[in-house]
Amino acid sequence: MASNGNGSLANGASTRGKPIKCKAAVAWGPGEPLAMEEVEVAPPGRLEVRVKLLFTSICHTDLSFLKGENELQRKFPRILGHEAAGVVESVGEGVEDLAAGDHVVPIFNGECGACAYCESGKTNLCGTYRVDPFKSTMASDGGTRFSVVDGSGERRPVYHFLNTSTFAEYTVLDTACAVKVHPKAPLDKMCLLSCGISTGVGAAWNTANISTGSTVAVFGLGAVGLAVAEGARLRGAARIIGVDINSEKFTKEMGVTDFIDSKACGKPVHEAIREMTDGGVDYSFECTGINDVLREAFLSTHDGWGLTVVLGIHATPKMMPLHPMELFDGRRITGCVFGDFKGKSQLPDIVDKCMNGELNLNFDGFITHKMPFSDINKAFQLLEEGKSLRCVLHF
Amino acid sequence: MASNGNGSLANGASTRGKPIKCKAAVAWGPGEPLAMEEVEVAPPGRLEVRVKLLFTSICHTDLSFLKGENELQRKFPRILGHEAAGVVESVGEGVEDLAAGDHVVPIFNGECGACAYCESGKTNLCGTYRVDPFKSTMASDGGTRFSVVDGSGERRPVYHFLNTSTFAEYTVLDTACAVKVHPKAPLDKMCLLSCGISTGVGAAWNTANISTGSTVAVFGLGAVGLAVAEGARLRGAARIIGVDINSEKFTKEMGVTDFIDSKACGKPVHEAIREMTDGGVDYSFECTGINDVLREAFLSTHDGWGLTVVLGIHATPKMMPLHPMELFDGRRITGCVFGDFKGKSQLPDIVDKCMNGELNLNFDGFITHKMPFSDINKAFQLLEEGKSLRCVLHF
Repeated sequence: MASNGNGSLANGASTRGKPIKCKAAVAWGPGEPLAMEEVEVAPPGRLEVRVKLLFTSICHTDLSFLKGENELQRKFPRILGHEAAGVVESVGEGVEDLAAGDHVVPIFNGECGACAYCESGKTNLCGTYRVDPFKSTMASDGGTRFSVVDGSGERRPVYHFLNTSTFAEYTVLDTACAVKVHPKAPLDKMCLLSCGISTGVGAAWNTANISTGSTVAVFGLGAVGLAVAEGARLRGAARIIGVDINSEKFTKEMGVTDFIDSKACGKPVHEAIREMTDGGVDYSFECTGINDVLREAFLSTHDGWGLTVVLGIHATPKMMPLHPMELFDGRRITGCVFGDFKGKSQLPDIVDKCMNGELNLNFDGFITHKMPFSDINKAFQLLEEGKSLRCVLHF
Repeated sequence: MASNGNGSLANGASTRGKPIKCKAAVAWGPGEPLAMEEVEVAPPGRLEVRVKLLFTSICHTDLSFLKGENELQRKFPRILGHEAAGVVESVGEGVEDLAAGDHVVPIFNGECGACAYCESGKTNLCGTYRVDPFKSTMASDGGTRFSVVDGSGERRPVYHFLNTSTFAEYTVLDTACAVKVHPKAPLDKMCLLSCGISTGVGAAWNTANISTGSTVAVFGLGAVGLAVAEGARLRGAARIIGVDINSEKFTKEMGVTDFIDSKACGKPVHEAIREMTDGGVDYSFECTGINDVLREAFLSTHDGWGLTVVLGIHATPKMMPLHPMELFDGRRITGCVFGDFKGKSQLPDIVDKCMNGELNLNFDGFITHKMPFSDINKAFQLLEEGKSLRCVLHF
């Protein structure tokens, strides 16, 4: 954590309470490239904060929404983006835990801290601010905080995305969706905590609770899959088997000890894994969103105690390809949202441990590219072609 | 636990090492009624014991096998039955933990105590003696210990069933499948620990680990379902909702606090349950083996933390009717074999606690009928017609 990429910070004194005009990459329709527009960002409402973003990165979920893969979730114009880091410019009414100048990381899976879910201690799905792919407005008033002048000269609202909308110089977040981090933490790295790294590492630590000396298989070596491997490495897993169709995909990094090219394997992957591990791995992670892969991941674990964690977004209408009786072999399967992290409660401590050296989380291994925000469409192309893990864009 | 139904006990001194001729209810083919035959029971082999059975009861799994519902599992002639209690008549070579005169309960899901599975502490599925519906011979030599003279006058082997084969006056068990119980425990009740009660109560205690004040839904109020309710009652569950298509099915007993007749409900059962419980129960149990019911059971739990335990035998070739993305609502699903009890390690303690009054397990509530062994076909009919929970047969 040597470098500090924070750059110049916001000073909200002159903008507080007023709309801010700034650049944003607006998605106007499914499949269209993002258009760099001047948008107006309204002041934050009750329990909201306005944040000057300094860095944002791109995740596959942004790509899926940009393509409009799920018709029901199409909502345009919209500002996508959910991995970022920035500085609070101003806070709305009733905000007590954040102030102008605080460094924050937006989270798509919020934590209000006060609802029955947050208070249960059993889930990280907040009753109000949990991830919701259908949500496109603010919780407080059902409105948007972005507007843009369209081709006909009319000013129209721009919809929000996943509680975050980070492809803009300024965004408005519910305080439940803004995590305050150490002021010296390098924000160009911290932005990866918004989604990819937290999801993968948390799946290994919180959902699976991987133990020292155990065996792990990770299906799909994108950023989330490699973050699982990194989490498993930090827990002292003895063997971390990566599975992908792309053998050039960063296989030797982030703790992966063995690689299986599923296309060249010559047998079902679960059979290969069972042979390599005396009956199957202790934990497997499905990070592809493909049903057939989910089945291989499930069968690759050891009977009696194997656990499969589902992380991939399954766009298929098809049901899980598992038979009820297969549960009787003692293999378990569970989903995981945001690595089962409670963002506001738990992430600041992770950041502090990274800062003081207690935790050696390899942020740099995930950042394969860096570009100015204006090159965002280029960054999308790299991700789509499987050439990047994370491209960090600076504003 | 006042009554002691143990009756006269075996004295193996005169029979040890010799074959024993006795009565058994032999299944000759799928769908045929059981035939009361004279069978010969060989002396126990290495790590086996021969047991004089005093009581046996009938479970739905016996009925399914008798009907030959799964073609791959047809194997005749065969001695079915897996719920029973009796006395060790003699022991084979190498047996150290059991002796003639010991009171035992057979278990279909054995525990050798020495394999990687038993030693893992993570599963009750023994590597060698776990439940196996395809197994029909003894583990030690692949042979059978039963033989019978068929219609043509030829002596032929009679196959074993689920490690137990209790529809006979004598049976041979692997020691891994014989649990020694307190010598004063009433064996007419203890036989229910072989399957139904242990499976249901264990699902509530071990698999779900039901906590005080929680809410529970049980789908299917047969013996296993009611044993779940009984287990939930003993854990102090606040509300136990029973669901069945038969409203006369013993609904007010064994802890069930509310009843839903799924045919008369007028809406999907999960909706009714969510309305009754402010969003869903903490735990649901699928005890019917019907895929549509499994889906209702899954959806009836509270998002964020609900757990569904699958206990029913799903004979359908269809996959689970759950979408991978539905796991992201924080509902979990898991299977459960024999209530996740390690039979030999844990059941003796349960029996002791029932004997000393520490545990008030309602055995009597499950025993709706008692008959002599010779009436076994009548007992099967009662079970098939849904008129009995457990009919205990005495030899």
